[in-house]
Amino acid sequence: MKLNIYLETKKSLIDNALETFFAERKSKKEGPFALLYEAMHYSLFPSGKRLRPILTCAAAEAVGGQTEDVLPIACAIEMIHTYSLIHDDLPAMDDDDYRRGKPTNHVKFGEATAILAGDALVTEAFGFLSQARKTLKIAPEIFLEIIEDISLACGASGMIGGQLLDIQFQERAKEAEDVNYPELEFLYIRKTGNLILVAITSGAKICGATPAQVKALARYGENLGLAFQVVDDILDVHDNYKGPDGRKLPSFPSILSMDETKQRSRELASRAIEALQGFDKKADPLREIAHYIVERKQ
Amino acid sequence: MKLNIYLETKKSLIDNALETFFAERKSKKEGPFALLYEAMHYSLFPSGKRLRPILTCAAAEAVGGQTEDVLPIACAIEMIHTYSLIHDDLPAMDDDDYRRGKPTNHVKFGEATAILAGDALVTEAFGFLSQARKTLKIAPEIFLEIIEDISLACGASGMIGGQLLDIQFQERAKEAEDVNYPELEFLYIRKTGNLILVAITSGAKICGATPAQVKALARYGENLGLAFQVVDDILDVHDNYKGPDGRKLPSFPSILSMDETKQRSRELASRAIEALQGFDKKADPLREIAHYIVERKQ
Repeated sequence: MKLNIYLETKKSLIDNALETFFAERKSKKEGPFALLYEAMHYSLFPSGKRLRPILTCAAAEAVGGQTEDVLPIACAIEMIHTYSLIHDDLPAMDDDDYRRGKPTNHVKFGEATAILAGDALVTEAFGFLSQARKTLKIAPEIFLEIIEDISLACGASGMIGGQLLDIQFQERAKEAEDVNYPELEFLYIRKTGNLILVAITSGAKICGATPAQVKALARYGENLGLAFQVVDDILDVHDNYKGPDGRKLPSFPSILSMDETKQRSRELASRAIEALQGFDKKADPLREIAHYIVERKQ
Repeated sequence: MKLNIYLETKKSLIDNALETFFAERKSKKEGPFALLYEAMHYSLFPSGKRLRPILTCAAAEAVGGQTEDVLPIACAIEMIHTYSLIHDDLPAMDDDDYRRGKPTNHVKFGEATAILAGDALVTEAFGFLSQARKTLKIAPEIFLEIIEDISLACGASGMIGGQLLDIQFQERAKEAEDVNYPELEFLYIRKTGNLILVAITSGAKICGATPAQVKALARYGENLGLAFQVVDDILDVHDNYKGPDGRKLPSFPSILSMDETKQRSRELASRAIEALQGFDKKADPLREIAHYIVERKQ
């Protein structure tokens, strides 16, 4: 299989599904809220890699399902990812002015609108998940289980807690206080890993995965999510990324050596692939994505 | 019935249920996230009137259910209300330093933590709603319907859109541009009314309300929500509330006369009570709450 074609095809399906959501809302003449929808749309498009929703689709396929079965779930995952980026970029948080080569949401629309656009994306994502019951012929219990999974993965002890830890670690770096390896791994698992993991298990659960399959895919997701963040660290170092004041931010290469960090990313990818032992070639996209994650240059 | 005893009893049940949530999370040793949970807890306690979750309980009783049947739903509604207050108070929004007589969340914990505490409350609220399936013996479809209702009521075309409109109307007031009556009503229905309405219909739906009952309770909720906001406006005027720069903020008494505004609040309460015609005395708390809403002095 050609991974790049696979990724492009899925990305295009996800983009279309997200565009449909906005088109349907517009047709309901939401005039007074036009600015809010514009701000939400602005950060969703043009798309990034759409890695998380693609993983939802690939996990669905790995257990014998199809992308069409999980598109609403994939969209909800991407809406949650996008909300987290908008809020992380805010002046009170990471204070980033650019993302994906264009001004961040608050730079373009102002802070109030950016906060609300993020709030709306996460709120609508849960609506999306519940509405999917109308189009997908799946037991309603499964949707509730997925909503619970996503809430926990992205909640106070998950992604949101991870973001607060990230800020706290950056403060410690300012004070020249070291962050150790287990601490940074703990942070990355919550901040990045959790959503990647739940993107995968949700896709599988919707398509009738057995508990053993869900467990294996969760192990794949844990390792993949961490590998993804480790490689992000490596790429940031190649870009000579530093804090705004030139200080070294906590990252794997600032704790391990660069060689050790690269070694670690390859180990994680291998473990992710090993977790898929029990799956046939329908899981090949997941395997190839694991390779891609550690080989990518951006 | 004595309404004040009724309100106190319900409030205490809701407070206990919310405290249990925090106690359970703490027992899982969420050490690194202690600050986040503290910030969430700070804005939930000590409690305000708990009007919305009490309405959830009262609506449940009106259709023959019990408070115990809807406590998780009531808690989720209060968590969403609290998140909306934390975000509304932020410097980029209404920039309020005090709420309920104590420093607002961002004044106490800093902006980053306040934004994340709000994010966590709304995310955990949806988790709460889905987890309720484990304790309440109700068809899972109903939970999904309620999650959809709440997402729509609080989403981009609902509460969040209303908050953005509020900010836009305040900007217009700065430019001395009038906001007219239908515009303000449109705003209030979204910003305040929607969550009150869905608090009521959710409680009723969980307890097996018929479609006709849900419709009547929605009419009650629409009128009650608007009455609540109109009375808020009246009380603000009595406090001589003005914008930070002394300008008159858009409000009912700034568009209608004070007499007309009071008349309007009584009409809305009457309409709310009329909507309950088909209900027996089990709906008395809802009727009394409508009286209380327009008679309250704070």
